[in-house]
Amino acid sequence: MTIARRRPQALRNALYAQSGGATAVVNASACGVIEAARAARGRIGRLYAARDGILGALKEDLIDTSREPAASVRALRETPGAAFGSCRYKLKGIDEDRDKYARLVEVLRAHDIGWFFYNGGNDSADTALKISRISAAMGYPLAAIGVPKTIDNDLVGTDCCPGFGSAAKYVATSIREAALDVASMASTSTRVFVLEVMGRHTGWLTAACGLAAARAGDAPHLLLFPELLFDEARFLAKVKRTVERVGYCVIAVSEGLRDAQGRFLAEQGSVDAFGHRQLGGVAPLVAHLVQARLGYKQHWAVADYLQRAARHIVSRTDLEQAYALGRAAVRLALAGENAVMPVVERVSARPYRWRIGSAALETVANRERALPRRFISADGFGITQACRRYLAPLIEGEAPPRFRDGLPSYVRLRNHPVPRRLRTAFRG
Amino acid sequence: MTIARRRPQALRNALYAQSGGATAVVNASACGVIEAARAARGRIGRLYAARDGILGALKEDLIDTSREPAASVRALRETPGAAFGSCRYKLKGIDEDRDKYARLVEVLRAHDIGWFFYNGGNDSADTALKISRISAAMGYPLAAIGVPKTIDNDLVGTDCCPGFGSAAKYVATSIREAALDVASMASTSTRVFVLEVMGRHTGWLTAACGLAAARAGDAPHLLLFPELLFDEARFLAKVKRTVERVGYCVIAVSEGLRDAQGRFLAEQGSVDAFGHRQLGGVAPLVAHLVQARLGYKQHWAVADYLQRAARHIVSRTDLEQAYALGRAAVRLALAGENAVMPVVERVSARPYRWRIGSAALETVANRERALPRRFISADGFGITQACRRYLAPLIEGEAPPRFRDGLPSYVRLRNHPVPRRLRTAFRG
Repeated sequence: MTIARRRPQALRNALYAQSGGATAVVNASACGVIEAARAARGRIGRLYAARDGILGALKEDLIDTSREPAASVRALRETPGAAFGSCRYKLKGIDEDRDKYARLVEVLRAHDIGWFFYNGGNDSADTALKISRISAAMGYPLAAIGVPKTIDNDLVGTDCCPGFGSAAKYVATSIREAALDVASMASTSTRVFVLEVMGRHTGWLTAACGLAAARAGDAPHLLLFPELLFDEARFLAKVKRTVERVGYCVIAVSEGLRDAQGRFLAEQGSVDAFGHRQLGGVAPLVAHLVQARLGYKQHWAVADYLQRAARHIVSRTDLEQAYALGRAAVRLALAGENAVMPVVERVSARPYRWRIGSAALETVANRERALPRRFISADGFGITQACRRYLAPLIEGEAPPRFRDGLPSYVRLRNHPVPRRLRTAFRG
Repeated sequence: MTIARRRPQALRNALYAQSGGATAVVNASACGVIEAARAARGRIGRLYAARDGILGALKEDLIDTSREPAASVRALRETPGAAFGSCRYKLKGIDEDRDKYARLVEVLRAHDIGWFFYNGGNDSADTALKISRISAAMGYPLAAIGVPKTIDNDLVGTDCCPGFGSAAKYVATSIREAALDVASMASTSTRVFVLEVMGRHTGWLTAACGLAAARAGDAPHLLLFPELLFDEARFLAKVKRTVERVGYCVIAVSEGLRDAQGRFLAEQGSVDAFGHRQLGGVAPLVAHLVQARLGYKQHWAVADYLQRAARHIVSRTDLEQAYALGRAAVRLALAGENAVMPVVERVSARPYRWRIGSAALETVANRERALPRRFISADGFGITQACRRYLAPLIEGEAPPRFRDGLPSYVRLRNHPVPRRLRTAFRG
């Protein structure tokens, strides 16, 4: 018989939530947070996770991570998606959404949450910042710590964002492989291949496709960035020159490519919960344009979620950073920090060395880091050496998952619910 | 100084050609043919490869594989695409295309080709068979040996086709990963995800997606096979039930899905060199149908060439079979066989054991092996245990390529041309 160890009354609990689109490594950050919180057993009580992100916190739908076996927690490093669920749900300004913030603090108070770890992008940094402010205003002691995450790589204050390096490795690998296929058949079949990649407003993933070209003339031959308006005539001229010179042409296009009037080429007419327009399907448009104007046979691919879920080909660098940032968030919390986010600092480029620093959420929230113009080649269709130097280390290293029966073996958490303590329900 | 070893006059040369769509492992078959031919140095002269498949043979555009370093040949096992080029070019009947067959024999004769290895699908088996017949009719001694290859898995006479297992592993992995992403977000975002896979007339790759579901309720929840006409009402009802029960719904759809009238849903109006209609884009159609009728937010992906070029996640079983079949083709040639093809025979299912057998090209040519109805579940939207038992071993084992700078490192052959001996050019 074992004697149950009782937690001293004084220990406050912590809450972790995932936000926005999942990545191949966001669960590695979760693993870092959980393992570090477990290691701080004498200082942090239980670590809860909100089911489906901030919505779970509002609904008092919490998961007790302390009931998850250590092996399952460890396996989070190998599992894509967001293991506790995520959501697209943006809290507005404090005045506008005062009831919701008050509800949030009510839930935090009911479960004696002393630390809130919010794992997301710039919207989430904004939410975490607001929660830290309103709890202070309401006299509820809480530290809110951001944990960066986005395949878009558009957070300011950090050298790179966890999730990006793995998506970058996936798209660069995919376009290199598909290009070999196109090259094989170009004499009698497909001449032009178009791969659509994510990155609504910033061309970081589009740029990453450029890493696949090791030598001059290598695919991809054209990159279409969301930062530059689509110039159809110049584009078609370059495609034609490429096919005449190389025999085929491989193109990466951002989902956010815009026409000369600044409108998204692939407007679908629908909008997501944040009011962002939902995109998709610019690759077929570009491919059919080439066929109609130049007569080349084309093929196209839209990787969509495959690129941000591809745990089987993550960057080891990215994975290690995601995990380290999760651990660092707990370290910052224990050091008494509030309204901050651990970030990646590049110590040197060659050899690549990085360390964890921190940034105030105020400097991160709601800002977006664009791909610098100096990272795009003069003609607008490629990347520069400076861009290559920045991107190259981020896709370095492999960390394949375990396979079982020929497929990656991914963990499913038990996700034990925390008993509710409030009588009231959330009215969203 | 080394003394050049002269080949005795009596040694005849061999010709290898790749045909049709590339796969992640067709170069492993090339490696098998080349290595086995090199090992038979005393019996086979030089092994040439036709550039861009049969077109290179017609144009007398030949590559001398004997000038390729052994390490490069070995690296073909790790390189997707078709290293010597491939084509879609179908020779018609002997009476219809007599001039072309005569030209082919003229080229073979000029280079003293005694063996012709043709690496492709059922069209290629037909071409190889015809070449063996016409050369016999023209009094030119030639053995034509097929080497199977197709991601469609639709060749008869073999338990499975090289290229299929790897594409199957890719699509099953991809849909498992994307499904975790969808599951994470379903409460507030995407409810329905659709992945389009290749397989114009046969649903083998669609079925392979079903391997991703390890337990009841797992994704994918629906498979849409090209063998069964699309029943919109039943499909929508099942999607609705799935979302209500599981919270989301993941669907794999064949590019060759046909409507109630038997027409391809994603008809693009263009046709390839074989007169096959060129398809693409059924995933967006199905996804938008779901959104329009059921109101669920959707995302879709079209993997296209990514699925047949994904060397980074090949099946080791598939890779070994592709290589072994290449070697076996040379063995058959040396044994004096003609108009045959090495095939995979399943010795036992559990544990999976296989061996190489052979089939007469006559029994393989122009035939297509459909997915048996007993492999499709009663409701038409899933796979049976029998199907699972057949498919499971084909995706077993991993064989990742070497990585360099974070990306798979693929070989580029030198492809030294063989000096032309004919004065006449091919008139296609």
